Amino acid sequence: MITSSSNAQVKRVIQLNKKAKERKKQQIFVAEGFKMFQEAPKEWVERVFVTEVFLNEHKELLWGIDYEVVEERIFNQMSDTQSPQGILCLIRMPTYSLEEVLAGERPLCMILEDLQDPGNVGTILRTAEGAGVTGILLSRSTVDVFNPKTIRSTMGSVYRMPFVYVDDLCDALPELKARGIMTYAAHLKGENAYDGEDYSKGTAFFVGNEGNGLSEHLSRQADRLIRIPMEGKVESLNAAIASSILMYEAYRQRRL
Amino acid sequence: MITSSSNAQVKRVIQLNKKAKERKKQQIFVAEGFKMFQEAPKEWVERVFVTEVFLNEHKELLWGIDYEVVEERIFNQMSDTQSPQGILCLIRMPTYSLEEVLAGERPLCMILEDLQDPGNVGTILRTAEGAGVTGILLSRSTVDVFNPKTIRSTMGSVYRMPFVYVDDLCDALPELKARGIMTYAAHLKGENAYDGEDYSKGTAFFVGNEGNGLSEHLSRQADRLIRIPMEGKVESLNAAIASSILMYEAYRQRRL
Repeated sequence: MITSSSNAQVKRVIQLNKKAKERKKQQIFVAEGFKMFQEAPKEWVERVFVTEVFLNEHKELLWGIDYEVVEERIFNQMSDTQSPQGILCLIRMPTYSLEEVLAGERPLCMILEDLQDPGNVGTILRTAEGAGVTGILLSRSTVDVFNPKTIRSTMGSVYRMPFVYVDDLCDALPELKARGIMTYAAHLKGENAYDGEDYSKGTAFFVGNEGNGLSEHLSRQADRLIRIPMEGKVESLNAAIASSILMYEAYRQRRL
Repeated sequence: MITSSSNAQVKRVIQLNKKAKERKKQQIFVAEGFKMFQEAPKEWVERVFVTEVFLNEHKELLWGIDYEVVEERIFNQMSDTQSPQGILCLIRMPTYSLEEVLAGERPLCMILEDLQDPGNVGTILRTAEGAGVTGILLSRSTVDVFNPKTIRSTMGSVYRMPFVYVDDLCDALPELKARGIMTYAAHLKGENAYDGEDYSKGTAFFVGNEGNGLSEHLSRQADRLIRIPMEGKVESLNAAIASSILMYEAYRQRRL
């Protein structure tokens, strides 16, 4: 049992939770909680830490799995949450190719530029899986998907939704064009309402930073600028909300 | 200039930020930041606090307004955010009647049961204004709309979206029925997909707690149980996302 906060593994988990650089170097991220443990592909799991209380309550779930027991006080230091559930895993990062993100006959893709809120990106991954999205492209300056807050808000979708970071999103666009994917930029100056377009063929939505929206640079590359109509004095919607409205409109049309 | 954290006004703001009880007692809430100041109805503003830096940069905005200057170090203690914008207002709470929340010929209402995440409730208010929602009903156990986190995520919609807390949501339902409002419960066991219903007449959506969904008690009272289809292994959507998909589907139909 781990009983000291100077234990090397404890330090490692704390570093992995805090630093994107460390996660990248080790190609490992931290997934906390019951659901994140249960949904993790077994071959991705590198290590599992549990408290004694968790072990006693859920022994059957850990059958055949290597785990380390950690004293509750120390476990709370390793945890990124306020109410730890008593289980925490180190997971090997998946890597996806651009081809996987754009796969299939009529892909549906999200292209995220410079989003900064970890919860927004995690929620987009979760909703994307729900809406049947093929994959997600993220600009290099977008928040790290493996940030513990992002991981939590994916509710497990991080294990299943292909995504890839690219240095310049514009560099990926010829590949989209070659596959006949139409690109739609969510933009306050969009001419057409988002629900006046046909998303039944290959479709990609560009969504921009929470404060500034999409860059002009990227907006200009889109086949269409679309807007989400808004009543009242609302100037914009939250980035995860806007993304979800677009993804679910595409999914609605595809289910008709 | 306020230069001490033992100043009574400083203490008052800190209490108002922290305690729902205090807000209720004083009928005052705290609104922070530039946008929340600018959009506040002038007659609601009880008091304005600014830093010297803010004052120097935005003197013209404060013309004709009573304000107090606060030393930056103290202002940061009053603030609920990590990067304070240098302006913070005390605002008189609005109060709405059930009639206002259900007003108009074909109202569109959100009925929120026991939501606990302040960001979710704030985001729902913001999106609701965008989607042309008439008003929002909240169960007494739902997080306080005047929580500083909620206020921030409304992005100003808290000044414009009528809402009312009720002890038991079921008690309000006869009033909805009397106005011919159809009620739809977002439910994992919903028979019909949400986009197979007609929301062109008076409509209310029930949305439940983040972890547990809607109570059986309330679900049973709905005219229809609807579900949002989900691909993959997604078991549910975030409550603000689900609400937004429903509100924007109603708004889409009403704009056709």
